[in-house]
Amino acid sequence: MNYRAVETTGEYVARLETGADWRGEIESLAAEVEADAAWFTALGAVQDAELAFYDQDECEYYEIDADEPLEVASCVGNVSWLDGDRFAHTHAVLSDDDGETISGHLNEATVWAGEVYMRVFEDSLEREYDDTTELDLWL
Amino acid sequence: MNYRAVETTGEYVARLETGADWRGEIESLAAEVEADAAWFTALGAVQDAELAFYDQDECEYYEIDADEPLEVASCVGNVSWLDGDRFAHTHAVLSDDDGETISGHLNEATVWAGEVYMRVFEDSLEREYDDTTELDLWL
Amino acid sequence: MNYRAVETTGEYVARLETGADWRGEIESLAAEVEADAAWFTALGAVQDAELAFYDQDECEYYEIDADEPLEVASCVGNVSWLDGDRFAHTHAVLSDDDGETISGHLNEATVWAGEVYMRVFEDSLEREYDDTTELDLWL
Repeated sequence: MNYRAVETTGEYVARLETGADWRGEIESLAAEVEADAAWFTALGAVQDAELAFYDQDECEYYEIDADEPLEVASCVGNVSWLDGDRFAHTHAVLSDDDGETISGHLNEATVWAGEVYMRVFEDSLEREYDDTTELDLWL
Repeated sequence: MNYRAVETTGEYVARLETGADWRGEIESLAAEVEADAAWFTALGAVQDAELAFYDQDECEYYEIDADEPLEVASCVGNVSWLDGDRFAHTHAVLSDDDGETISGHLNEATVWAGEVYMRVFEDSLEREYDDTTELDLWL
Repeated sequence: MNYRAVETTGEYVARLETGADWRGEIESLAAEVEADAAWFTALGAVQDAELAFYDQDECEYYEIDADEPLEVASCVGNVSWLDGDRFAHTHAVLSDDDGETISGHLNEATVWAGEVYMRVFEDSLEREYDDTTELDLWL
């Protein structure tokens, strides 16, 4: 296992803008506070969402579309550098009006309301191609 | 997007009381440590639960009742002031004996066992009515 | 409610090893950094998983097997001492290629890719048998 001690240089709470993209908003926050590495948790609701599932045989992401309002029952992720951009790796748990739940890797989602807590770390995290999983991983 | 740098004045772990209300316990912890703003994550199990889904067209919450024992697979939320009370905005992911999952905004739930980590922030968060979503939001 | 103010002595990010056990990896991290108490959140994907549901009448865990690749949409837990070993109490939310979700108490799972954030606390947490729930609880 690879691990690193981190030092927190700042902590933030944010309210995501209604109508904006959920992941884009988190990346905007990271840019605003000049985060080179960060960890976040969040909750709220979205107007629609595109999740993704990584096929471990094909080593490809497949999209899962949800074109309806959903609660964001949980959201966990981190910010790192990927190909020169700040990337918010974001997983989310979403639920409908019966509480029925879909979840996974979040590509995009239109914010209804969102509340985020983010910790920014001193040392940069950078994603690089991993041969085994064909994913971009840090450390 | 609205955001704020926060300073943490205290960190706490808590065990929620069997038979008490999950959200009430978190609000009791917040009151005990005089939190005017806080962020928490939690896990555990409940004896029953009432979730809610916010209808984004009607701008109203609809209740989803679950009258059975459920694991709390995830719980994320924050504490702020709402109409003069400390309010723990709480989202939860709940699962039954097959692992089947319901999730959403948590109104109430009877604790079986609960473990919480809470960070308390120096500056108060206060919820105010938002015209667009008809929700009470902070920042 | 029982609670305790905690002091953080270290913060870590870790990448879990492909092919290793998810919970075992978290316990290895805890051992490596000599954590006597810790809190963590995580995300990633696994190749299979064994969840468990605690039957509150029988006071027994029942296993739920998932023999397929799954996203780890959320993972929350903590590290404490149990019977002389570091134990990572771990709850997880898992999803398949349709976004369909199972969740609960995580016994074991084979890591595909995993990203963890852990805070280590100064004072030890120790689990002891609780008569009411027949669970091992701390505080």
